[in-house]
Amino acid sequence: MKYSEHYKNTLLNDVIPFWERHSVDHKFGGYFTCLDQNGKVYDTDKFIWLQGRQAWMFSMLFNNVEAKEDWLKVAESGVSFLKEKAMDTDGNFFFATTQDGRPLVQPYNIFSDCFAAMAFAQYAKASKDEDYKELARNTYLNILKKKDDPKGKYEKRTGVRPLKGFSLPMILSNLVLELEDVLSQKEVEETIDFSVNEVMNVFLQKDSGLIHENVNPDGSFSDNFEGRLLNPGHGIEAMWFMIDIGSRNDDTQLINKAVQTIITILEYSWDKVFGGIYYFMDVKGNPPQQLEWDQKLWWVHLETLVALAKAYEHTGDQRVLDWYEKVHNYAWSHFADPDNGEWFGYLNRAGKPLLTLKGGKWKGCFHVPRAMFQCWKTFEKIEQSTNFKF
Amino acid sequence: MKYSEHYKNTLLNDVIPFWERHSVDHKFGGYFTCLDQNGKVYDTDKFIWLQGRQAWMFSMLFNNVEAKEDWLKVAESGVSFLKEKAMDTDGNFFFATTQDGRPLVQPYNIFSDCFAAMAFAQYAKASKDEDYKELARNTYLNILKKKDDPKGKYEKRTGVRPLKGFSLPMILSNLVLELEDVLSQKEVEETIDFSVNEVMNVFLQKDSGLIHENVNPDGSFSDNFEGRLLNPGHGIEAMWFMIDIGSRNDDTQLINKAVQTIITILEYSWDKVFGGIYYFMDVKGNPPQQLEWDQKLWWVHLETLVALAKAYEHTGDQRVLDWYEKVHNYAWSHFADPDNGEWFGYLNRAGKPLLTLKGGKWKGCFHVPRAMFQCWKTFEKIEQSTNFKF
Repeated sequence: MKYSEHYKNTLLNDVIPFWERHSVDHKFGGYFTCLDQNGKVYDTDKFIWLQGRQAWMFSMLFNNVEAKEDWLKVAESGVSFLKEKAMDTDGNFFFATTQDGRPLVQPYNIFSDCFAAMAFAQYAKASKDEDYKELARNTYLNILKKKDDPKGKYEKRTGVRPLKGFSLPMILSNLVLELEDVLSQKEVEETIDFSVNEVMNVFLQKDSGLIHENVNPDGSFSDNFEGRLLNPGHGIEAMWFMIDIGSRNDDTQLINKAVQTIITILEYSWDKVFGGIYYFMDVKGNPPQQLEWDQKLWWVHLETLVALAKAYEHTGDQRVLDWYEKVHNYAWSHFADPDNGEWFGYLNRAGKPLLTLKGGKWKGCFHVPRAMFQCWKTFEKIEQSTNFKF
Repeated sequence: MKYSEHYKNTLLNDVIPFWERHSVDHKFGGYFTCLDQNGKVYDTDKFIWLQGRQAWMFSMLFNNVEAKEDWLKVAESGVSFLKEKAMDTDGNFFFATTQDGRPLVQPYNIFSDCFAAMAFAQYAKASKDEDYKELARNTYLNILKKKDDPKGKYEKRTGVRPLKGFSLPMILSNLVLELEDVLSQKEVEETIDFSVNEVMNVFLQKDSGLIHENVNPDGSFSDNFEGRLLNPGHGIEAMWFMIDIGSRNDDTQLINKAVQTIITILEYSWDKVFGGIYYFMDVKGNPPQQLEWDQKLWWVHLETLVALAKAYEHTGDQRVLDWYEKVHNYAWSHFADPDNGEWFGYLNRAGKPLLTLKGGKWKGCFHVPRAMFQCWKTFEKIEQSTNFKF
């Protein structure tokens, strides 16, 4: 079977039906995300990142795969919940609520807001509902307003060692493309310029070619746990956001630099003993703080597959194809669960499931189906082109 | 070699020299705690829990083992740092500072304060310095003042699902005995009564005999990630605090209940495949949130050895001795590092070091030497008694 068909089949016949069947809360709206190996709900709390991500996913499928009413209904359930239950009076989004939508955890960072904005924009496009378009725009503007102090009063760090984090420009570089329909061209270009510059000229290190998670405000190295931290999956995922921007802007230089960075990070973070990509590393080889550092996570490997597929589409580079096949073989043989559907999320270093859940506080209907969609569409282009051996 | 000698030798010839040699910051005072396998400093930030714990440790050795001036000097370096650098103007203790004592992380909970209070009280006893006695008392009173809202403005949870946590009564039950010299008898009795009641009648579950980390304000079960969480090492450590209180108060009933709880928790949380005690579990068998749930941590096993030694001292129960020997064999063959001294802190499920550090952000000069001291003294009593087969 062709790669494109393999991804399409998995998306449409395995992954999406799994979430349609198990995750929709028909009573209170929104989604259950804590699903065990078989899809049974083991906890009913609603984690707002994942509400936004699933509403985005079903809207995106409606917009890009097929205008199925069932998908729109699933998406609608999520955006209503977000709008009515997950937003505070200032337009900030809680981190978690109870099943029936009473707030449990305050809006202590901006990621809930980012995924809500993505969901609103895709849903507005699907439903043609102008209110959601407006809500997407307002949520985005609120994110920009908070971006220099994203944790507000919940910030526990003093000002003694100000660091800036990679997550913010990384997510903005994806969010801005998602929101092109609801922003002015000037707004879009400004955020693209800001985020590409931060990602490629500040966080991407000139000497090592690696991406640091935290740097001094002037971009220099900060030698402490935060400053030494590498999150290889983060860096690689950001590189496919860069390839998308490079593709939009016909910027071959940006694409090539992103492709080289994917390879550099992979060579550095591939586990030579057990295979797979480490979750966290310390750039000086010191013990990282994160006890889960050597685990193999589903999203890291899926985002790497997307990044490599896009990298191959744009370069035809044999090194990229070799890496693609290596990661593909590892990921499909370790994460996929052909018996019960969907993918395991968390493997130990040796590649055995550490938790058998299909969804939880952080894993929802997002990285698996998004990567399936992206790889499907990318391989379709690769396979149709006469430039490639496929 | 007798157990008592084994623990004494390790404490005095291995563990304490390791920290004396590697951890003292002769330039700025206080201690380095980020030490690699050989004791080399790999990070210079100061984590205030660990500053308090090490200052307490050296003061305690001075008071209870030998009045060595060198030990008092090490302790003095820590208490000065705590007093001059780690305390804010309201008497709260930061979570972390730079090497030279500039605050990095705000006082966002009360545990830094608890370990500072312990350090001040032991140091006051060692040095006869009344200022530190006063400081210990003030710090303790400040903890009590904050105990119903320990995170203050850093609390991210709304009031929708108020839960109370086990850590607070647990630490108070130990802290209050540490501070007997600086509190009135009434203050001591009040806190003992409060903490014993919370630990043994609220968090200890009547049906299962297990200890939950979080319960509803009325003590009932709360079915969510926090409410289902078990931390077996926490529960077992608290049981030796209970045995100490039972011993102080001649309360055989309390001691026996604590001993039974130790056995119940051990039977539940012992890894039947690889040996060792799990770090976290979900009481309903659901996937826990903590990705490190199946790891084997030094402190869990050391506190279990202390708890079992004390349990055996007070009961002579053969089941306790059997468990003692099982945990002893596991712990000494997996955590101890005879090549470079001290103990590894973090093993993977199979018992191999996950991180080879001897100290870090959370591991300092505390659980290893405290357990060595406690086991040494407890086995000395057991071995001298004619009631036991030792």
